[in-house]
Amino acid sequence: MNIRSLQSSDYAILSPLINEWWGGQNMSDRLPKLFFEHFTNTSLIMENDGEIIGFLVGFLSQSQSNEAFIHFVGVHPNYRKQNIAKRLYDVFFHVVKQYNRNIVKCVTSPTNKVSIAFHTNMGFRMEKGDKTIDNISVYTNYGGENQDRILFCKILE
Amino acid sequence: MNIRSLQSSDYAILSPLINEWWGGQNMSDRLPKLFFEHFTNTSLIMENDGEIIGFLVGFLSQSQSNEAFIHFVGVHPNYRKQNIAKRLYDVFFHVVKQYNRNIVKCVTSPTNKVSIAFHTNMGFRMEKGDKTIDNISVYTNYGGENQDRILFCKILE
Repeated sequence: MNIRSLQSSDYAILSPLINEWWGGQNMSDRLPKLFFEHFTNTSLIMENDGEIIGFLVGFLSQSQSNEAFIHFVGVHPNYRKQNIAKRLYDVFFHVVKQYNRNIVKCVTSPTNKVSIAFHTNMGFRMEKGDKTIDNISVYTNYGGENQDRILFCKILE
Repeated sequence: MNIRSLQSSDYAILSPLINEWWGGQNMSDRLPKLFFEHFTNTSLIMENDGEIIGFLVGFLSQSQSNEAFIHFVGVHPNYRKQNIAKRLYDVFFHVVKQYNRNIVKCVTSPTNKVSIAFHTNMGFRMEKGDKTIDNISVYTNYGGENQDRILFCKILE
């Protein structure tokens, strides 16, 4: 397995693939072509024998000069529980530190228990939202109406 | 009317508004919260008496150091044909020049004749795609399967 930068040509392969990985949900709208053109230097592909088995799309915040943001991460269903997301995050941390970013943020849904556990294990802390549900601090309607979100933040050492 | 930078708090107002402006289509997925957090310094709101009547969401390309990209532009239906998009574009050009960007790119659909005429009038040229339809150079499947696109490019003086 190897990790490389995202390329423009990955779009045609990855865009239909992520819908498959999410069991037929239309996820590809969340990953428009612009990320494959303009944020390639902080976005990562993991391959196994030339096949894409994972990706991380992230960027350096343009408005917050010490922050980087992880937008979208996916792992092929057959390759889960093999620390692939962890390896992608670790490489992302390494890359953004080279751009002098020491804060990494990301957003997840309060219902996504796997994501919450993963980010907690990776050393992210939850930012204090406006309500608490099951010990989880939540931002009401952060992603739009009825779209509560958890905001995760990690300080890089 | 005045033009100001996009703010985080605009999301809750603008996100449902754009669906209205596009006649009930779900457009807000194309404008996720991340733009309101991390690309505020190159994104613009036009207001009239405190009401949002137009916006331009754009960014400095992270991978292409001389490029800026216009992602999404909208004008309130009651305020169209008043050069509001032109004013937003002109301010965007001014802003990105301050970040040493001299190329502005954007993408549109071959069926969007209003957008094609607008960009041509604004001095954008079409990049050479892989096929020509009605004298328009088109990139096949650029935005995904059956999603042909025109790529516009303008050199700033």
